Amino acid sequence: MSEILVVGSLAYDSIKSPEGEVAKSLGGSSNFFSVAAKHYAPVRVVGVVGDDYSESDLNVLKNRGIDVSGIQKVSGGKTFHWQGKYEGDLSEAVTLKTDLNVFETFNPELPAAYRTSSHVFLANIDPELQLKVLEQVEKPKLVAADTMNLWINIKRPVLDRLFSKIDLLFINEGEAKMITKQQNAIAASEEILKMGPKAVMIKRGEYGVLLRAADGIAVLPAFPVPRVFDPTGAGDSFAGAFYGYLCQQGKSDFNTLKTACVHGTTMASFTVEKFGMSRLLEVTPAELETRRKKLLEVANFSL
Amino acid sequence: MSEILVVGSLAYDSIKSPEGEVAKSLGGSSNFFSVAAKHYAPVRVVGVVGDDYSESDLNVLKNRGIDVSGIQKVSGGKTFHWQGKYEGDLSEAVTLKTDLNVFETFNPELPAAYRTSSHVFLANIDPELQLKVLEQVEKPKLVAADTMNLWINIKRPVLDRLFSKIDLLFINEGEAKMITKQQNAIAASEEILKMGPKAVMIKRGEYGVLLRAADGIAVLPAFPVPRVFDPTGAGDSFAGAFYGYLCQQGKSDFNTLKTACVHGTTMASFTVEKFGMSRLLEVTPAELETRRKKLLEVANFSL
Repeated sequence: MSEILVVGSLAYDSIKSPEGEVAKSLGGSSNFFSVAAKHYAPVRVVGVVGDDYSESDLNVLKNRGIDVSGIQKVSGGKTFHWQGKYEGDLSEAVTLKTDLNVFETFNPELPAAYRTSSHVFLANIDPELQLKVLEQVEKPKLVAADTMNLWINIKRPVLDRLFSKIDLLFINEGEAKMITKQQNAIAASEEILKMGPKAVMIKRGEYGVLLRAADGIAVLPAFPVPRVFDPTGAGDSFAGAFYGYLCQQGKSDFNTLKTACVHGTTMASFTVEKFGMSRLLEVTPAELETRRKKLLEVANFSL
Repeated sequence: MSEILVVGSLAYDSIKSPEGEVAKSLGGSSNFFSVAAKHYAPVRVVGVVGDDYSESDLNVLKNRGIDVSGIQKVSGGKTFHWQGKYEGDLSEAVTLKTDLNVFETFNPELPAAYRTSSHVFLANIDPELQLKVLEQVEKPKLVAADTMNLWINIKRPVLDRLFSKIDLLFINEGEAKMITKQQNAIAASEEILKMGPKAVMIKRGEYGVLLRAADGIAVLPAFPVPRVFDPTGAGDSFAGAFYGYLCQQGKSDFNTLKTACVHGTTMASFTVEKFGMSRLLEVTPAELETRRKKLLEVANFSL
């Protein structure tokens, strides 16, 4: 049996974009990732919330059959809160406020049943926490991670250690350039492979994703969405569907990674159509299937 | 018989990029466009140069069988000169100096033989000149144009008139957003179709091209070039191969436009590999064919 273990944030987000705003909307990388990945494979979540985290929000995962026994609830603590906004073409999130709250003292401890997980996804959190989780998994078949500029700036040696232990890296284009000191995504992807990962998915927002592995390079545009409401969680739901697909297929050769890009891109295109998790939570398998085919029509060319 | 008439600039460019610099290197939209288009179809050039424009530079076109009888040489005049630089990721040209010189008093007059051209390409020059050229062509089958922010800012009414007379528009992403007041390339492409053109190719630099027509939308990434020396002329050589292919095929349905994107993208990927026109001038049909196939491997996905 294959199953995905994910560690990341469970959060409340307050978001403003040119299309409107929401306050304390359910979010966090683990939530977006898990809901997307559960379309393909069993998912187990490690994380921490405060006692302000409502039962109904926990049920969003539980009711989908996602294992939440690894989520700690800190009594007297407050859930991680992110406040941000998007302007202009919505290509970059501007962070207005980050309240780490219960994350400040989070010490991940895996339930016994989690330790045999075949697939591990270390969403974007402090790389020391990512390593702590990874060390508790006995013999993972595949390990993937995401990261961000903050950790590149303040915990580079820890990140380097992490990179030597993972198979797949998900990273934004700007951060890929920053960490490799390259000006060009192609050159950056080459450098990243030298740091450890066997494959890297460089996320380019509205321009899609660049996949690089020893076997080759592939570039897939985003699905054309004429009106983006809120890009929050697009990257995590991309990763969820991508990684879920790999787990379901039980392989990670270059062609499987390419097809995983189609699954990830399609999932993310729904996420951005409404604020927070709302569109992701309602998307149906039939809608996903239709749009995956539509994406291939948009992206495939012939001579 | 089908043939392409192009009007645009013949220039000397002084260019600086992180990879080096060149002074008074042969350039101009017509030069890049013609050399690329001539791989596919007969090409005729309308333009103007000063008497500093060397015979050997004129021979670059002539020796390729490009008709230069529509190029006026102004005695005592100086050739158009552009000085610019690229920084960081080379995504945007910074203009340091533009000497219009002979272009200031240019009044295009078409040789009689040019007037029956089937395909017209109006490269990025003053839209009044673009219209003047177009009016002298008797019954063009297909008309395409390019433009830039300068004309959007100072000659919008003329541009609107031009847009009502063209079939295809080539435009940079930033300029497409500017002219439509949209923040998103998908929405911008929809608006542009309402202005007249039957199809628009939104040029996105290292991210490739977005093609939009009534029949659909297609997005092709740029060919992954790890080291870009000089992006000057990439858009014009894209347009040259794209439009040359349409002329050669004698049709412009959506599938032909899609395949034209592959030809244009491949040609442009060679242009940026060296400064000025040098790489474009040496590229062989065999190299082009090999890279077109490689591009499809990079860009095509399956489920």
